[in-house]
Amino acid sequence: MPNIEAALEYARTHRDGFLHDLKDLLRIPSISTLSEHADDMRAAVEWIAAQLEDTGHTGIEIIPTKRHPVLYAESTGAGPAAPTLLVYGHYDVQPADPIEEWHSPPFEPQVRGEELFARGAADMKGQLVEYLKAIESIRSAGSLPFNLKYLIEGEEEIGSPNLGEFLERQGKRLESDLCLNLDSLIYGPDQPSITYALRGLAYFEIRLIGAETDLHSGMYGGIVDNPAQVMCELIAGMRDREGRVQLPGFYEHVRELSDDEREDLAALPKSEEWWRENAATRELFGSEEYTPTERATARPTLDVNGFLSGFTGEGSKTVLPARAMAKVSMRLVPDQEPAEIQAGLERYLTENVPSTMSWELIQHAHARPAIIERDSPAVAAAAHAMEQVWGRYPLFERSGGTVPVVSLIKDQLSLNTLFFGFALQDANFHGPNEKLHLPTFARGIEAFIHLLLALPRYLKKDQER
Amino acid sequence: MPNIEAALEYARTHRDGFLHDLKDLLRIPSISTLSEHADDMRAAVEWIAAQLEDTGHTGIEIIPTKRHPVLYAESTGAGPAAPTLLVYGHYDVQPADPIEEWHSPPFEPQVRGEELFARGAADMKGQLVEYLKAIESIRSAGSLPFNLKYLIEGEEEIGSPNLGEFLERQGKRLESDLCLNLDSLIYGPDQPSITYALRGLAYFEIRLIGAETDLHSGMYGGIVDNPAQVMCELIAGMRDREGRVQLPGFYEHVRELSDDEREDLAALPKSEEWWRENAATRELFGSEEYTPTERATARPTLDVNGFLSGFTGEGSKTVLPARAMAKVSMRLVPDQEPAEIQAGLERYLTENVPSTMSWELIQHAHARPAIIERDSPAVAAAAHAMEQVWGRYPLFERSGGTVPVVSLIKDQLSLNTLFFGFALQDANFHGPNEKLHLPTFARGIEAFIHLLLALPRYLKKDQER
Repeated sequence: MPNIEAALEYARTHRDGFLHDLKDLLRIPSISTLSEHADDMRAAVEWIAAQLEDTGHTGIEIIPTKRHPVLYAESTGAGPAAPTLLVYGHYDVQPADPIEEWHSPPFEPQVRGEELFARGAADMKGQLVEYLKAIESIRSAGSLPFNLKYLIEGEEEIGSPNLGEFLERQGKRLESDLCLNLDSLIYGPDQPSITYALRGLAYFEIRLIGAETDLHSGMYGGIVDNPAQVMCELIAGMRDREGRVQLPGFYEHVRELSDDEREDLAALPKSEEWWRENAATRELFGSEEYTPTERATARPTLDVNGFLSGFTGEGSKTVLPARAMAKVSMRLVPDQEPAEIQAGLERYLTENVPSTMSWELIQHAHARPAIIERDSPAVAAAAHAMEQVWGRYPLFERSGGTVPVVSLIKDQLSLNTLFFGFALQDANFHGPNEKLHLPTFARGIEAFIHLLLALPRYLKKDQER
Repeated sequence: MPNIEAALEYARTHRDGFLHDLKDLLRIPSISTLSEHADDMRAAVEWIAAQLEDTGHTGIEIIPTKRHPVLYAESTGAGPAAPTLLVYGHYDVQPADPIEEWHSPPFEPQVRGEELFARGAADMKGQLVEYLKAIESIRSAGSLPFNLKYLIEGEEEIGSPNLGEFLERQGKRLESDLCLNLDSLIYGPDQPSITYALRGLAYFEIRLIGAETDLHSGMYGGIVDNPAQVMCELIAGMRDREGRVQLPGFYEHVRELSDDEREDLAALPKSEEWWRENAATRELFGSEEYTPTERATARPTLDVNGFLSGFTGEGSKTVLPARAMAKVSMRLVPDQEPAEIQAGLERYLTENVPSTMSWELIQHAHARPAIIERDSPAVAAAAHAMEQVWGRYPLFERSGGTVPVVSLIKDQLSLNTLFFGFALQDANFHGPNEKLHLPTFARGIEAFIHLLLALPRYLKKDQER
């Protein structure tokens, strides 16, 4: 077992070198969506592979997919009795547009004050390097008391289109006890937090078809039904004015919040006013049966994401549209199942689409909600690590969003995910002037050292399965 | 009083010359929407002016508007005791696209079988020439027993944008007893018909604004209301499943159909099956309280003409839209007033838009419904004229559509409109291979002769005001 003080000391004395290395990685414009950056993608993944090699990992393999390769590596020296972590991250970044709004070039990292500015600094090359440098620090103090496997993809910013197939093919070798997802953030520089639950997603496109072609509303208005009108009726019936979803069976498997959990969520510094200002909306929405924080993160919902029918240009055109299309999605919470939600929607459409219309339902996304219990050993280890570094116990948060990889890893590898990463909320993810808070970068490395060295104590093999 | 047989004989013996003249006019590509045809527009209006001059009209003036000029002329020789008609027509045509689908060049008129193919043949140079040649024929047999004024515009195919202002400026000199609108059609080559009523139109754009920007549906779904959802709720509440409009006061001034009129409408050869096939729809819509013909032409309705909100591209984007836009229009029947309908819609929105949203209502079009009584002298004269030519009494039809010029002329000149023109329903208006049925062209000229010579008998001055 490495001495933790020695590892921390190593991290402190090598801080400048760590930052230097991070800047190296940030200089590589690994933009996954632009094909002219294919060589940069390769350079970025090789940079990480080299770091893993330098820190004693084996079985390093850059595995091709239909687009950008996945980096696999392992460290199995702790033996079969020690826990195995599957470390997830991604080496790709978003494009830098709008480039003219950057105060320094996006791929020439620049420190201004306590911040390091560069595309990818917070999403998520900063976290990758924090983790890698924590491993380097621990190894400097002894051999690793846990096993590691890696899943570092290059397509997160384009929606991980090939990850499902990759997991199907490579699932066996990724078998582990817990997934450690580095792509995460905390509440603030002085307030660590743990995101222990994500909402799932079921995303659909509904198409209604009335007449064969658009008709003249003067000639046929009154005898031909209108798919835009019917779509409105259908959607109006899906959710009430309090935000309660009206689809059959929608709430059947919703796990109710315990008093204990509601208390924790109420302790978050996110008032009604905070949410209202963040959303830049005149008034919040939804039943007061639940707090805004609960409604935004721990309760399921339904939203229209898009609606298109008929003439939408300037002025007027007296068309009676032949078709209407709506994108409708539901955010799900444990233990809702996307497939059951889809069945409910199908039943609703079967029962409510009038005979004047035909309809199609297209499923665009299914992601299960994810939760890792707040009293689980992994979360306890993470909370312990944060407390050591910040001197404060973390807040416990749920996220209203969906991280498809968490759902994929749960479905295909049966692994729960522990989020552990130290971006800050104001980091300008995906926007101009993306930044990393350097004091938090340093704390992040120490937090990783604490977590990794604590995990074998907390995490008994198989417990998190 | 000219001898009618002499006038008809003149028309019969000059038929080839009339067709020759029509072809001359059809060769002029007077496309109002394309600015490169400005000279052609001028040539077309001058061609008609010359015909009017040749047939003894005076005060001929080509009056500029912001775009294409209006042709004015008069014939006042019948004296103040005789009735005065305001003859409405337009000399512009639609573009010829898609040009490759024409079997002969659109501006090189070609006779194939009983049809003359050319852009504008049916809409409406054919009717203009029928009318002009009827006047020429009557004058060959004596002096006109009625007075004439003309309103021949060049912007009908682009929506008559300057006609309202023109009528405001020139209204005084256009004072007449009845508007004769030549831009019309009949049921079939062997079945004349009279369109005695049009629906009006009130066309709106509704805009809903929620948050300041589009939001992430994962972060804010459940606490921020959705304008697309709200728009759906609003629209769903505007019309019920039987097609009945639910806006406040909507039916208050609807003139109910008399049993007599319902009988006439039922006599039209337009079965439920006919309407269904024409609309190419699987099933007709609307309350069975009224027949399809009544619902499509004599009852008011409401339709969504367009709806746009959020993400409408391929695939999925988890956006919670900040805005939603819908175009909604109502077809109106006597005695609904567009302004009252708008007030009802405004009241509905005021009462039903939730406090989470702000809204805007934009009025795109207001046109009153129009009706000329079936038992009025003008309609009786038209029916008489048709019966003389076809040996059949006309069918009486209402049109579900809206002709803004009819509404403008009613509003600004207090004139009722008699439609009298002989295009056929299958004439390919606005499409490739527009055509005129030559036997109907010949009958049309004779019908105009009968109508014009009958009108002084039927139409006592001021009766149609």
